[in-house]
Amino acid sequence: MNEQDFSKRTIEILRKIRKQQPLIHHITNFVVMNSTANVTLAIGASPIMAHSHEEMEAISAFTGALNLNIGTLMPYWIDSMLIAGRAAGKRGIPIILDPVGSGATPLRTEAVKKILAEVPVTVIRGNASEVMSLFNKEDGIRIRGVDSLETVDAVRDGVYRLAKELKKVIAVTGEVDFVTNGEKAIEVHNGHPMFGRVTGTGCAATTAISCFCAVEPDPLTAAACALGYYGLAGEEAALTSNGPGSFQAALYDALYNLPEETMMAKLKIKPVK
Amino acid sequence: MNEQDFSKRTIEILRKIRKQQPLIHHITNFVVMNSTANVTLAIGASPIMAHSHEEMEAISAFTGALNLNIGTLMPYWIDSMLIAGRAAGKRGIPIILDPVGSGATPLRTEAVKKILAEVPVTVIRGNASEVMSLFNKEDGIRIRGVDSLETVDAVRDGVYRLAKELKKVIAVTGEVDFVTNGEKAIEVHNGHPMFGRVTGTGCAATTAISCFCAVEPDPLTAAACALGYYGLAGEEAALTSNGPGSFQAALYDALYNLPEETMMAKLKIKPVK
Amino acid sequence: MNEQDFSKRTIEILRKIRKQQPLIHHITNFVVMNSTANVTLAIGASPIMAHSHEEMEAISAFTGALNLNIGTLMPYWIDSMLIAGRAAGKRGIPIILDPVGSGATPLRTEAVKKILAEVPVTVIRGNASEVMSLFNKEDGIRIRGVDSLETVDAVRDGVYRLAKELKKVIAVTGEVDFVTNGEKAIEVHNGHPMFGRVTGTGCAATTAISCFCAVEPDPLTAAACALGYYGLAGEEAALTSNGPGSFQAALYDALYNLPEETMMAKLKIKPVK
Repeated sequence: MNEQDFSKRTIEILRKIRKQQPLIHHITNFVVMNSTANVTLAIGASPIMAHSHEEMEAISAFTGALNLNIGTLMPYWIDSMLIAGRAAGKRGIPIILDPVGSGATPLRTEAVKKILAEVPVTVIRGNASEVMSLFNKEDGIRIRGVDSLETVDAVRDGVYRLAKELKKVIAVTGEVDFVTNGEKAIEVHNGHPMFGRVTGTGCAATTAISCFCAVEPDPLTAAACALGYYGLAGEEAALTSNGPGSFQAALYDALYNLPEETMMAKLKIKPVK
Repeated sequence: MNEQDFSKRTIEILRKIRKQQPLIHHITNFVVMNSTANVTLAIGASPIMAHSHEEMEAISAFTGALNLNIGTLMPYWIDSMLIAGRAAGKRGIPIILDPVGSGATPLRTEAVKKILAEVPVTVIRGNASEVMSLFNKEDGIRIRGVDSLETVDAVRDGVYRLAKELKKVIAVTGEVDFVTNGEKAIEVHNGHPMFGRVTGTGCAATTAISCFCAVEPDPLTAAACALGYYGLAGEEAALTSNGPGSFQAALYDALYNLPEETMMAKLKIKPVK
Repeated sequence: MNEQDFSKRTIEILRKIRKQQPLIHHITNFVVMNSTANVTLAIGASPIMAHSHEEMEAISAFTGALNLNIGTLMPYWIDSMLIAGRAAGKRGIPIILDPVGSGATPLRTEAVKKILAEVPVTVIRGNASEVMSLFNKEDGIRIRGVDSLETVDAVRDGVYRLAKELKKVIAVTGEVDFVTNGEKAIEVHNGHPMFGRVTGTGCAATTAISCFCAVEPDPLTAAACALGYYGLAGEEAALTSNGPGSFQAALYDALYNLPEETMMAKLKIKPVK
């Protein structure tokens, strides 16, 4: 597929989402529950936020994708993710993991390792520092809280090897996003600096990937197209907003409204390998 | 009361809310805590979100209405609702229940039954599938996550009988809302499809009912007027917005600003029985 | 320092925040996690929301300020605050406390007393009723939920004495804000009534103080300048908005964009003692 093929595929996937309205089960952090539910709805899918152990199995019966996010983590919630992840795995439901703050505290780094060991994760989406914490055994990861101090370029080779080894899709987001399954690799050049001034926009990028994975069987394509679409919506939002508050509202509007011609003209999803 | 009487009553209730600024105690889910608090404030009442067992009794001393919502449910929170509900019951405080996702998982269906058995609920507000789960003993409820797959028309008779049996007001919301106490019945024709693209707008409809119940002694009137007012605010918001993000901000603005003349002209609260 | 000196200092502190982007660790309530994270980002700092006991120590290693807020309180979270507070205290990190609803329920009043006894809090920010609950031994505090029924004027002398006794900065916010360390005192005349119609704007004022304390060593100056800046952003937001929904988005925009000339012209931070 070339760049234009990816633009076309993005449009097709969006049409499918809006037709099927898949249910996206989120086990996510308190900060972004509202905003990622709104992003799910703006894209055209339907969110369910639930973490009680008693209902994980029941919910998996009508789930199109499972979104796991380790922000504001608590031990109980790690177990929720393991129970829901195993149920989703049995049913072949795609599982998308956001390792928020992995590398910053042992609790988070260990939780991600446990989830990866016990749950058949399909796609991992994080910033450069978070993703580096998954393969760098040394204590050299430069992360501060949930903010990456690494660049996407610095982790590119490591991510490629890790994706190959784990047989998963890994998406590293930053100024340019890098998405790979260990064989093919794609760069996404859509996005805007204002994302960095609104909380939960990384988590919402992961939500976009979950929505796309619910209807597109190839997770590499789903992840790349979702990031292109989400990044472009941010570019369009920045054109009509005056700061982070109006940007966030305009982002939801753009996710809901983005014309297909704009996608054909402005999506920059580029295969590099 | 005819349609115009309901418009007048809506205006009178709103004036009372803004004068008395009743405290609305919410025990609600993580997704909508912020947005339902904002809706409470935009309407003119004052929210308190609290669930710790230790303070349920103390808070009931200054509560005007108790809003119970079972989204993102956990066993601890069910107990919070039972403790707060019994305290509110002793004091004669109206209790409004939102059975989010009832029928979708046994945890939720059972929680609603337990609350209804132990707490003197005044009004129940849900979508058609959620409400059907309260009276349909068979496993035939078509619900997917928190999304209704039933229509309001399909549940109308069952709701009427259930309201009569439980001696409660039941409000089923959808394209047209249906509100009944088992004797009288009212249809509300205000609303807008964009509500479906913003998370927590059903929960916020329940919040509007709670605000109205805090100052209006007749819960049937309170529920119908609240749904008319809330739906009309959405209609007005849709006129000035470009998608779900700007709609949400415009909705809060409209709830705060809706002119009384607009209410007289556009509220559609119709007694049908 | 005179009024103009405070305007200049506010600008200098903001420049420092934007250069250093300090990490502000919040242990806060479910209602405002998203909105206070967004305020932190709009000001130019970086939020981390975390409460799991296992990671409190690890997070303190890169924290610029610790923001403690007792809304939606649970016993587990009180312990989170004590653990994080002690870790911050050892490292000399400024700690800012928001006693949401203190005085309204014994759980909250006791929690604040325990935190003040065990944690070296730097600044307390509350409304008049909340602050009065810290020094009024009698049961005469007029508070209803989280809404103050006291005026700033009524608590001025008590606050002054309490600040002197505790050797802390106390900021009481209301129509005019009063900030004192028990020796000097400052009034802040910026603000807007619309803050009262958006949830969590008091909590976000505390967040602004935390951001300022992370780079300004004098907490009295930090608190006064933060409240002036935050209040002025609200004034500017009110000029371009139509109600509480558009006000909130415009507030974030203004916090991000407020021109330095506007600050020089309109900040009203007045030393009174």
